[in-house]
Amino acid sequence: MTVEEQVLARIRPSPEEEARIENVVRELLERLRATLKSKGWEAKPFLAGSVAKGTHLTGTEIDVFVAFPPNLPRADLEERGLALGKILEKGTHRYAEHPYTRGWYGGFEVEIVPCYRITDATQRMSAVDRTPLHVDYVLGRVKEGQTDEIRLLKAWAEGIGVYGAEAKILGFSGYLCELLVLKYGTFRGVLEASLSWRPGIVLELDRAPGRTFPEPLTVVDPVDPNRNVASAVSVEQLATFVHAAREYLQSPSERFFFPRPLKPLSVAKLRAAVKRRGGGLLAISIPAPAVTDDVLYPQLRKGHRAFLDLFHRHEFHVFDSRFDLAGKEAIFLFEFAVDSLPRVSRHVGPPVWVKNAKEFLDKWRRNPKTIAGPFVEGERWAVDVARDVTAASAVAKAKWRELSIGKDLEKAARRSSQIRPGASALRAGYAEAWTRLFDKRFPWER
Amino acid sequence: MTVEEQVLARIRPSPEEEARIENVVRELLERLRATLKSKGWEAKPFLAGSVAKGTHLTGTEIDVFVAFPPNLPRADLEERGLALGKILEKGTHRYAEHPYTRGWYGGFEVEIVPCYRITDATQRMSAVDRTPLHVDYVLGRVKEGQTDEIRLLKAWAEGIGVYGAEAKILGFSGYLCELLVLKYGTFRGVLEASLSWRPGIVLELDRAPGRTFPEPLTVVDPVDPNRNVASAVSVEQLATFVHAAREYLQSPSERFFFPRPLKPLSVAKLRAAVKRRGGGLLAISIPAPAVTDDVLYPQLRKGHRAFLDLFHRHEFHVFDSRFDLAGKEAIFLFEFAVDSLPRVSRHVGPPVWVKNAKEFLDKWRRNPKTIAGPFVEGERWAVDVARDVTAASAVAKAKWRELSIGKDLEKAARRSSQIRPGASALRAGYAEAWTRLFDKRFPWER
Repeated sequence: MTVEEQVLARIRPSPEEEARIENVVRELLERLRATLKSKGWEAKPFLAGSVAKGTHLTGTEIDVFVAFPPNLPRADLEERGLALGKILEKGTHRYAEHPYTRGWYGGFEVEIVPCYRITDATQRMSAVDRTPLHVDYVLGRVKEGQTDEIRLLKAWAEGIGVYGAEAKILGFSGYLCELLVLKYGTFRGVLEASLSWRPGIVLELDRAPGRTFPEPLTVVDPVDPNRNVASAVSVEQLATFVHAAREYLQSPSERFFFPRPLKPLSVAKLRAAVKRRGGGLLAISIPAPAVTDDVLYPQLRKGHRAFLDLFHRHEFHVFDSRFDLAGKEAIFLFEFAVDSLPRVSRHVGPPVWVKNAKEFLDKWRRNPKTIAGPFVEGERWAVDVARDVTAASAVAKAKWRELSIGKDLEKAARRSSQIRPGASALRAGYAEAWTRLFDKRFPWER
Repeated sequence: MTVEEQVLARIRPSPEEEARIENVVRELLERLRATLKSKGWEAKPFLAGSVAKGTHLTGTEIDVFVAFPPNLPRADLEERGLALGKILEKGTHRYAEHPYTRGWYGGFEVEIVPCYRITDATQRMSAVDRTPLHVDYVLGRVKEGQTDEIRLLKAWAEGIGVYGAEAKILGFSGYLCELLVLKYGTFRGVLEASLSWRPGIVLELDRAPGRTFPEPLTVVDPVDPNRNVASAVSVEQLATFVHAAREYLQSPSERFFFPRPLKPLSVAKLRAAVKRRGGGLLAISIPAPAVTDDVLYPQLRKGHRAFLDLFHRHEFHVFDSRFDLAGKEAIFLFEFAVDSLPRVSRHVGPPVWVKNAKEFLDKWRRNPKTIAGPFVEGERWAVDVARDVTAASAVAKAKWRELSIGKDLEKAARRSSQIRPGASALRAGYAEAWTRLFDKRFPWER
């Protein structure tokens, strides 16, 4: 058996699983229809997602959409959609463009999502409303055997860590994987084609782009040419995809599909690594706010950027950093090349010839913070002044309240936050996150 | 008495000194004429410099030029010029554009300088040959009482530290001071005019510039419009001049002309200052080569720049630095914001899409210096590698031989050089130089 046959044997649902899925789908649709009828609501439930397209992997979730007429008020759509979700076990409400319910049914994870019934992309619509059109497009184009090629691409992307358009991953969505296989024919065809991708490349199927897209990778949505199906893909994930493709084609291995899980280093081993590397450490932790990943991750990214900017503004040099969720905490980890600075720092002022140079002199002459000067440096005024704080951790402590780190995260941080410099940053609970910072191997290399 | 009258009383030679100068000049010219006659050399000795122009300060040196016919071979000019210099006591040979003799006569420092007799600037000439034309120009234009105004400007420029076009100062020459007073009438007229100077300004007397000049300040030489009399003036010295002028006009004081000498801090006080400032120190010393200041200072400047570049390339952050002569040593002093770095450092390589990315991977995969990676960062390859050295002093020790620090300085450094980090950099012999680095007051503020 080839690598890919072996992989398919592991990722393709068995006939028995397919039968169970079919039963669950039939039951769900029947119960939804019955409920709609009893309530007198005009709407049509239908199967969506990868199961509808026959491109699902084993252990899939099941997506059921309920299409309401376009003239139904938005508030009613939301209320009715959530009411229908009550048929799920352990259901929780989620909020994307429309609120929806996620829960369990017959041993499968299930989403029940309300949407507006639309028939083409010229109608105003949300990503959710567009989903049925995606199902139709793929079902109408997919050839005999290509569903397995799609399954391979999805599992491969998952294995190398680039599967999913959500904020946490910024990678390749299921629909994007489907379109790529439709365009290039096979899993390997996609990988071979990717070797010539460059940031800015535009790929299309049937329809030309309706506008220009700013993202590194553009795949024009054939059901809506104004949309880039690959809009989430970051340049780093694109680069990882291309590199992994080159490596895989040279030497195919199941390891790409099923990488070994990251083995976190012990705190003792982390300590040894830190000693060898020599950088300064800092861990900032905030209780993770109870919001979905797609709300939380953009805030984590924003907070991370805000801390980096803060350190940069204060002339500390962050060597490497990352953010993560560790248990119930959102954590920001920093490895510094420079995490402490001299007390003395230099302010460079206006050129000597400029009129308001006098303001600079008036401000700094005999200022208690002035250590030396003002003096002339080149053609400008400069002054040596005392820093308020000389350690990166002290800057974080003094200034984090002024940063813009995202609504929910900020609220959580105001209740409680921890700033741990040096050895205290290497807590057992953060071991996996620190390991990810120091161990730069790709998943298939572990 | 006004400040300026008081200053003039101190800087203007007394009638008695003038009489002694006249005697020395007469004797010198007579002896030179006699020697020329006895040797049968056709040449004419004449007085040059500030004494010739009547703009000299008390304790002046006396410049005697000997003009040879333009058709005399260069080698003969040099040989005869130095032979004439033998009439001086403790004479030493100096090398500018022509070699000349510097020594003592009748209690005055005297230079005897050979030159070619020329009558206007269209003839090919060196700066030395041009000097008689400068004397004629100033003598032909200077008005009653203006010699005192020139004396004030020279003494003021000396006091604020910007007098002298030589490589050590990069400031205002005597001839430049004379031209400025001829242009603006008085000492104060020059200071007032300077308040509107900006880098790039071009000043002229009688003749328009013959070309464009790149320097911050241009004063077109009225005897040679292709020459900028202010070509030596650095932007920092220009800025200091303008700032000092503003300060002086607001509140005139003898302190500008006669600043208190810098009082070097004791090593104990320097240590306390360093502790308060918090920066790292490094002193590099090289035996000063036995060459004139005008040869040495450009090499010191070049060496200084080379060390700064070296530290910058290795990611150390120099906060402030200077070079100086301390006794028989040329010294380079550095105050660091960052003088030690972690072992780990990051090399960023080519984008993942670039063909020769493979070379980067081949070089760093399984390289003994590799700490982590290669990995993808954005769209590029990167790798964490171990630094060879983590201290700025170690970089200086390992690499100074590769630097381009000037011929004589380099030769001296190969014989012996000292690199002193931290507390050992604060030697008593370097106290004045360190004090100049930390004490940024202008001379008149001391």
